[in-house]
Amino acid sequence: MKPQFITLDGIDGAGKSTNLAAIKAWFERRGLPVLFTREPGGTALGEALREILLNPATKAGLRAETLMMFASRMQHIEEVILPTLSDGIHVVSDRFTDATFAYQGGGRGMPSEDIEILEHWVQGGLKPDLTLLLDVPLEVSMARIGQSREKDRFEQEQADFFMRVRSVYLNRAAACPERYAVIDGNRSVEEVRNSIEKVLDGHFGY
Amino acid sequence: MKPQFITLDGIDGAGKSTNLAAIKAWFERRGLPVLFTREPGGTALGEALREILLNPATKAGLRAETLMMFASRMQHIEEVILPTLSDGIHVVSDRFTDATFAYQGGGRGMPSEDIEILEHWVQGGLKPDLTLLLDVPLEVSMARIGQSREKDRFEQEQADFFMRVRSVYLNRAAACPERYAVIDGNRSVEEVRNSIEKVLDGHFGY
Repeated sequence: MKPQFITLDGIDGAGKSTNLAAIKAWFERRGLPVLFTREPGGTALGEALREILLNPATKAGLRAETLMMFASRMQHIEEVILPTLSDGIHVVSDRFTDATFAYQGGGRGMPSEDIEILEHWVQGGLKPDLTLLLDVPLEVSMARIGQSREKDRFEQEQADFFMRVRSVYLNRAAACPERYAVIDGNRSVEEVRNSIEKVLDGHFGY
Repeated sequence: MKPQFITLDGIDGAGKSTNLAAIKAWFERRGLPVLFTREPGGTALGEALREILLNPATKAGLRAETLMMFASRMQHIEEVILPTLSDGIHVVSDRFTDATFAYQGGGRGMPSEDIEILEHWVQGGLKPDLTLLLDVPLEVSMARIGQSREKDRFEQEQADFFMRVRSVYLNRAAACPERYAVIDGNRSVEEVRNSIEKVLDGHFGY
């Protein structure tokens, strides 16, 4: 099986961090070489851009922000994702372009056609082989965000913002079921982990 | 006359800094309201991106760098250029999109069609009303860069790089003479200033 490019995505509070650990453990148990990375970030340039993007003091308009997201992604693809895959190593990215469609598109109103132009400019034909979409109802997301850590700029936005974000994620998954696995994150940690392991087992043919 | 968007461009060492002062003096003498700005930069976001771009430690690939240039430009347009023009104030920008075609395109090899896609995404129909292109032969540019200040990352690149940059600037000016005024910068400070003043007088109908 050729090296797989897998992304993990979903609204804030869906449980990405917890489940990244489960995915790591799965790859270890299967003895498969894998690199974990994240967006925005994943490179020195990307981390510098991530800092600017998450800093409430640096006011970036929606269109500038979207270009920065894709600048970070461009470097991430060229410096990390493609070289790792061509070394025969699987790649798991915490967020990828689905997040841009969901947050900048659905959440903040950037037309999806404008995002598609940049997606094509940056990625050419590159798409994830599998996207694990962690989904939770809005109240669960909001409660988890509220209690777990300090809010950054994106997390300060209101509930209807997150409703639009969630619905873009779900619509994208519904439109392309062969690439997405929607995981119900509103269950016990063990149940969610089991679902993820089953999806990975199925994807890798175990 | 509607507020004018004027850009000053040219290879490093062509004399932009010296002549910006002359342009400022011209606007003062004519009593015309004007805002001077620059790229990359011109906004808090743009200055943060400029720092990353000019820092040799942050390795940005050509395509990521180009996206960052346009992110900076997007913010610059939305936050500074358009609001200033609609307040009835002229805008003079030290560098604009011509520099992207010249440096990232001619200098570093980005296909101009790829730059045009981003230009359109970011600018829509916005183009400068007048571009003052300061031109000097390569040896003059290299000598001025060498003697005047510390080299930043772009200035470290070799002579053939600057030859390609210069030729893109001249080709763009030749293709669109109604927008560009090519100023021979290889003359005395007074002679160059006189030429610039003549171009501005003509453009503004004095």
